[in-house]
Amino acid sequence: LSLAQLEAPCRLAALRVRLRAAELDALIVSDPVGVHYLTGFPRDAFGVAVVGAEWASFVTVEGFAAEAEGLARGYVPELLPRGVWGRVHSLLGARLRRGARVGFQSEHVTHALFGRLAGGLSPLEPVLVAADDDLASLRAVKSAAELELLRAAAAPLPEVFTWLCEQPLVGMTERHLAWLTERRLREHHGVDAMAFDTVIACGAHGAVPHHTASRMPIGPGELLVVDVGCVIDGYRSDMTRTLATGRPDDTAVRIHELVRAAQQAAFERLAPGVSAEAVHQAAAGVIAAGGYGDRFLHSLGHGIGLELHEAPFSEPGAGEPLMAGQVLTVEPGVYLAGELGVRIEDEAIITATGYELLTPWSSELVVCG
Amino acid sequence: LSLAQLEAPCRLAALRVRLRAAELDALIVSDPVGVHYLTGFPRDAFGVAVVGAEWASFVTVEGFAAEAEGLARGYVPELLPRGVWGRVHSLLGARLRRGARVGFQSEHVTHALFGRLAGGLSPLEPVLVAADDDLASLRAVKSAAELELLRAAAAPLPEVFTWLCEQPLVGMTERHLAWLTERRLREHHGVDAMAFDTVIACGAHGAVPHHTASRMPIGPGELLVVDVGCVIDGYRSDMTRTLATGRPDDTAVRIHELVRAAQQAAFERLAPGVSAEAVHQAAAGVIAAGGYGDRFLHSLGHGIGLELHEAPFSEPGAGEPLMAGQVLTVEPGVYLAGELGVRIEDEAIITATGYELLTPWSSELVVCG
Repeated sequence: LSLAQLEAPCRLAALRVRLRAAELDALIVSDPVGVHYLTGFPRDAFGVAVVGAEWASFVTVEGFAAEAEGLARGYVPELLPRGVWGRVHSLLGARLRRGARVGFQSEHVTHALFGRLAGGLSPLEPVLVAADDDLASLRAVKSAAELELLRAAAAPLPEVFTWLCEQPLVGMTERHLAWLTERRLREHHGVDAMAFDTVIACGAHGAVPHHTASRMPIGPGELLVVDVGCVIDGYRSDMTRTLATGRPDDTAVRIHELVRAAQQAAFERLAPGVSAEAVHQAAAGVIAAGGYGDRFLHSLGHGIGLELHEAPFSEPGAGEPLMAGQVLTVEPGVYLAGELGVRIEDEAIITATGYELLTPWSSELVVCG
Repeated sequence: LSLAQLEAPCRLAALRVRLRAAELDALIVSDPVGVHYLTGFPRDAFGVAVVGAEWASFVTVEGFAAEAEGLARGYVPELLPRGVWGRVHSLLGARLRRGARVGFQSEHVTHALFGRLAGGLSPLEPVLVAADDDLASLRAVKSAAELELLRAAAAPLPEVFTWLCEQPLVGMTERHLAWLTERRLREHHGVDAMAFDTVIACGAHGAVPHHTASRMPIGPGELLVVDVGCVIDGYRSDMTRTLATGRPDDTAVRIHELVRAAQQAAFERLAPGVSAEAVHQAAAGVIAAGGYGDRFLHSLGHGIGLELHEAPFSEPGAGEPLMAGQVLTVEPGVYLAGELGVRIEDEAIITATGYELLTPWSSELVVCG
């Protein structure tokens, strides 16, 4: 049994509490990760879950009959030759009274699909309510078993950084190092997959936050941004260090120290009850005081779980307090176009009293090779 | 220069012909692959292209300044600290007359984003038009240079099947074989990435069209479905064979022969001017005549290019005639739940007179090991 199958009844119950609070008569869940989370159905298959106050339906096509056998308790799959959405319309029509409030995932449902949904449900004259947060905020707080998987997914990363520093980096292309890193994680650590294309960015490439590993050889005395993550049992990890390939110049050392201080300032604030925005501002304030406020080109961090980026987001405007059981990356950076970039990223679980670091490895500037 | 950068002026001109035919004053392109195709901007970054009859704009955030330097001729990037969509609204407001017809990608734009778009453009009182097909049909017909990349992405696959048959398959887990296949493609063929998670499905797993490679060891005398594809310079490939690990039983042999005959029937119809539906029906008819009509659980094939699945689609209802320069997978299958599955998939370019096979390798049942 997968974790999603085991925990689905509990997740369904928690979702229903939220639906009640939002006065929703039903919620249509159609994003594949949300469907997987609630039902155990594989996220690379296609099915739609519809959750009411005292019933739950699951509709898919016959081609996914095998996948539907593993559905969690509480869902009886309907297998159709085609016309999944037509069936969603008819079952809601049969279940709900006229004028019912029906939630849907407005950040996932496309405009085209919404048109079909609204048309198909028109006999019901429903109030269609964008209800993205009900599921996103549920998923943001992880169960004990989910936290175990997040720890497992993060565990290889510090070891990979130690291994990386033992490799002959200078002269190797970024692309080749990215591949060796992936191979190490697959073969030595047995991870299922990479969470994203590994970022290996040397020298001026480091100034590009999402640089694609290129055929450029890594030079001596450069900063090297390495951003890597993997997947274990569906759960993602994400960690960045900026290494040096020999003694870097004073600017590089100074900026690395500034980013490190920014990360520490963020960690000093990281605790339940603090807003995700306040954590972002703690880091951003240090970078601004150091004179690089406009060179911190992104927000501080993101939740992580079944998706690489999910709630909560640590960014301006994120006023909601952080809660124990949420997981957050803390990744300040400074980027000087044409020169260099520095990012330091760790993952942490918010605990009852503070946080638990999932990626313990030196945040000082490590000179490799 | 990337291919997208080189060909963007030509693509932009072709798109404008379509916009004129659809009487659109502008098209908002926001799906990352479409943006990349039209502008050369990397698909893993975020920016929005807006194309008018005699102007084109590109809006992104400062964090993607380096990526925006490589934009194709004809686009002057606007780099904003934030508020990309707000700027899209204001530039359309400045460019267009009241009541203008503005196309958008309704199969990409979410309901939530559409709401912001409609709200932001409301002073313009535009007619918002779902214009997905204008770009999709343009992308469906490949240039000579795109066809070269598609050939390059497909070229390693037949060789990988020959290599696979030389491996000691029996006793190895599906997962391990998937990893060895990927490693072979990366290290021996130098591909950039896998196009999708390699499907390795032995025995009854073969009945699941999108089976995820498991920890199940491959047995002797089984059918083994292998569906694999890779990426070169952004272009995808996709090929399936059903191998046998020792002499399979009569049912397996018979079904394999049926699927092979279905594929041949499809290839006999494959030519410009024929509808994609007719090609699907040619294969479906053979499978139905063989008594397994309800066990062909998907449609015959899909276009392939910068995305694994793109226009054209060979399925019921696809009445448009195929055109030279389009690329199509031809992948009939028969799936017997709990028993076995057979799928044979090749990729072909539609040529002026017929088709060019990109994945030449025996479609007979090959007994390996």
